[in-house]
Amino acid sequence: MAESVGGEQVEGRRAVLELLRAKTRAVRAVYVSRASDSDDVLAEIEQLAGRNLKPVAPERLEQLARSDVHQGVVATAAPLPVADFDALIANPKAFLVVLDGVTDPRNFGAVLRSAETAGATGAVITRNRSARITPAAAKAAAGAIEYVPIAMVGGIPAALERAKRAGVWCVGLDERGDADVFDLTLADEPLALVLGAEGRGLARLTRERCDMLVRIPMRGNVASLNVAAAATLACHEIARRRAG
Amino acid sequence: MAESVGGEQVEGRRAVLELLRAKTRAVRAVYVSRASDSDDVLAEIEQLAGRNLKPVAPERLEQLARSDVHQGVVATAAPLPVADFDALIANPKAFLVVLDGVTDPRNFGAVLRSAETAGATGAVITRNRSARITPAAAKAAAGAIEYVPIAMVGGIPAALERAKRAGVWCVGLDERGDADVFDLTLADEPLALVLGAEGRGLARLTRERCDMLVRIPMRGNVASLNVAAAATLACHEIARRRAG
Repeated sequence: MAESVGGEQVEGRRAVLELLRAKTRAVRAVYVSRASDSDDVLAEIEQLAGRNLKPVAPERLEQLARSDVHQGVVATAAPLPVADFDALIANPKAFLVVLDGVTDPRNFGAVLRSAETAGATGAVITRNRSARITPAAAKAAAGAIEYVPIAMVGGIPAALERAKRAGVWCVGLDERGDADVFDLTLADEPLALVLGAEGRGLARLTRERCDMLVRIPMRGNVASLNVAAAATLACHEIARRRAG
Repeated sequence: MAESVGGEQVEGRRAVLELLRAKTRAVRAVYVSRASDSDDVLAEIEQLAGRNLKPVAPERLEQLARSDVHQGVVATAAPLPVADFDALIANPKAFLVVLDGVTDPRNFGAVLRSAETAGATGAVITRNRSARITPAAAKAAAGAIEYVPIAMVGGIPAALERAKRAGVWCVGLDERGDADVFDLTLADEPLALVLGAEGRGLARLTRERCDMLVRIPMRGNVASLNVAAAATLACHEIARRRAG
């Protein structure tokens, strides 16, 4: 069986709308609950779905849904393609998000959403330890999975070595970083932002492979941010510097 | 019955640890599953809980838990106190987060966590339309509820009028804003950041009461950020300007 990052089932209005708009993979069916409240997004979904539109009873939709956040819409599609890691790191404008063991699907999806809105050119996950694009991840990504190519690698430390040889700066986000993320002057260079697992942070080997570690300044009593929140800040800081 | 923002049940290790560390309200019991893997956080919880520590069977903990994210720890405590809105807006360093109809508990908690790490001095919610501090919200806040005073108001537009009369700038976060959040030069002034509901954004009346509307620049195909991600960016941008 060919490897896959998932994404065969997409739930939630915004996520399904972007699946239909992006047209990057075959859509099999778009199930819409007959009890759904209409809005602009649903109207566009129904129009774009065309002959794949399947109005169903609300009970049937509940059976089909694999998350509790479907908002009355569930689509099935070809799995997301797996991006080529070497192509991602060869991009002279590379802005990659590398997930070192993020396992919560909602966090995974939220990281992809923030990365996409910041102009990231790709994401990198591990074959064995990462979350896949489950319906909950697709919902949290709000369509970003259709636009951010996702590559899979055997291990993060070796992948970072390859990225560095290709001229990509590897920047780890770590509470123990000695530089402030807002002082990240190399944001214009090809860059991989490396994010650690919820709670544990970056693995030791991953941390050692990074060119530099940056932290987000904390100004309260709570010592850390959620991984998705940290990714949002770092990605948009990179975007701001690239645009400025 | 006195009004309350909730918080009587706190689940998840980080959230319970901060409840015990902060000592701002009475803790009734700290239930820990006998099957929990120990770590530094759990060890500190067990030490701080003292005679309130109740080791229980894993099945009993599942019965007590009201979320699926308890990580083997559930605490019961006095409800969170309701902060005085007039005191919050009278603070010459006011940095408030106003939630206009955020209803998802996990988003609500995530907003509080990000606000706290950015040094926010308070949060404002509505009595009738806002999420309360449920166990899922407390978990997502990761302890921030113990440190960020939360006030309740009848309606957001009238509250913004009162804040403005007290010298607080009201800044709405809105996709249609005409200024970039990264150009927010008045971050040093007393300030209230106003956040709209998931999907719908700011209500019309709320938008009209704001002194200015700022947006987060979007650089991809997905048109918007999750409310918690947007709040994270805006709060930390304010923090960066205040520190700089």
